Amino acid sequence: MSLIDRAPLARESLTHAAPSGVRAAIRARQWTGNTKRMALGYHQANVTILPERFAFDFMRFCHRNPRSLPLLDVTDPGVPSRALAAPGADLRTDIPAFCVYRDGALVERVSDLRALWRDDHVAFLTGCNLSLDQVLVEAGIRFPHLVREDAFPAQYRSSLSAREAGAFSGPVVLSYRPVQEEQLLRVIELTSRFPLCHGGPVHIGDPSRVGIKDLSAIDWGRIPEPVPGTVPAFWACGITAQAAALACVIPEMITHAPGHMFVTDLPVSDRTFG
Amino acid sequence: MSLIDRAPLARESLTHAAPSGVRAAIRARQWTGNTKRMALGYHQANVTILPERFAFDFMRFCHRNPRSLPLLDVTDPGVPSRALAAPGADLRTDIPAFCVYRDGALVERVSDLRALWRDDHVAFLTGCNLSLDQVLVEAGIRFPHLVREDAFPAQYRSSLSAREAGAFSGPVVLSYRPVQEEQLLRVIELTSRFPLCHGGPVHIGDPSRVGIKDLSAIDWGRIPEPVPGTVPAFWACGITAQAAALACVIPEMITHAPGHMFVTDLPVSDRTFG
Repeated sequence: MSLIDRAPLARESLTHAAPSGVRAAIRARQWTGNTKRMALGYHQANVTILPERFAFDFMRFCHRNPRSLPLLDVTDPGVPSRALAAPGADLRTDIPAFCVYRDGALVERVSDLRALWRDDHVAFLTGCNLSLDQVLVEAGIRFPHLVREDAFPAQYRSSLSAREAGAFSGPVVLSYRPVQEEQLLRVIELTSRFPLCHGGPVHIGDPSRVGIKDLSAIDWGRIPEPVPGTVPAFWACGITAQAAALACVIPEMITHAPGHMFVTDLPVSDRTFG
Repeated sequence: MSLIDRAPLARESLTHAAPSGVRAAIRARQWTGNTKRMALGYHQANVTILPERFAFDFMRFCHRNPRSLPLLDVTDPGVPSRALAAPGADLRTDIPAFCVYRDGALVERVSDLRALWRDDHVAFLTGCNLSLDQVLVEAGIRFPHLVREDAFPAQYRSSLSAREAGAFSGPVVLSYRPVQEEQLLRVIELTSRFPLCHGGPVHIGDPSRVGIKDLSAIDWGRIPEPVPGTVPAFWACGITAQAAALACVIPEMITHAPGHMFVTDLPVSDRTFG
């Protein structure tokens, strides 16, 4: 596949594309934005790349915090691909944008990881709420990010603590959605069925109960606009990994840029991949 | 808790005991046998103890082979307990019997691990088919090991290959049950609901299709007696870990003795522990 830029694509042309088609468009720089509503029905993954010496600690951190970091797949050290999750894919080129964290700070945003990838790098793929877009769209759930192109969920550091593992600890990061009151039970039921996409909400109602004083004071994502007739709902979020890297001053962690996910071939309808 | 031997208990007295009660009986050597039908409704775990340098490889091996090795919990290096899976438990004393494998051979069977435990040991807890005993008993499934005290499932090395990870590869070990023909669909349905207990069968029918030429040539467990009117059914089994240690000549792996499981506080009815 040539890496020469081709004509940009519209999001709609990738909504029902195969995951490999979305990855090819990203690799060719025909798509550089976030991946919401793309390759509907397939898992989109958070990607967390760490030096191998932190890999076992981080894998335990994921396993102990399955709501925030439900593990989909893990690479072998130095190998930037996984035939199970995404045949033919290259993690270094098939993600729209990456964030590089060093010594507890975000230092760089890059669109290609080939110059930074090393033989001791291990990549963790964890589940993402965007993987549920199809389920929610089909159920008629009107989350702002599903109905407006310029909307995207907001994320906050909460007062909940992640279960620690080795070098990793920190707050649980929560992702916010305003839920129409009459859809609340349905949304809880639907999302609870998909533990690999963070499962059901961790909290509904007063945001201050989970340490969020002001919904406009976001830590990641976009500032939400007030939506009349809605109940605040919060799901555990994969950014919990980045929050731990910052809190624990991990020497190096490279991740996808928030919302710019790795689109896998793993169907959301199968929960085991066994 | 004193480790002085007390009067032995009957299996029936532990069937509806709390997991902590079963563990206390094992610690006091009041129970030294297998743990089938004990603390019904709670996960019984396969235990695999490895030096930390093999831990990340083995954790990937588990994650890539979730039917054989569904991960329930993993300890921190050197810590022989997990407050999440079993508050107050000590893995070195609360399991009836252990097998010690060195350099690809079973070298020793011990009933207490305190003399062998080291600071670089990591213990992996993975799901076990015995955890489904309550579900099967309540559904009226008449597996021999559920209705006869002297019966226990048989396990075989199959012709299926586990997905490899680092130092670990080998055959998928399968656990055999004869299923009454009229109960076959019900058994498939019931077991499929519990991926942390190996999920549904990997194979039903002719054993030779998965490389098992003779049901009496067992690799682990007890030789099954022919049961008229039954269909052979095979589930992935946690002994896949020991088979890999043997096949790959892993320098050291310590496990529970087959059938002598670690009884956890994790309810079978909750599949996420998030």
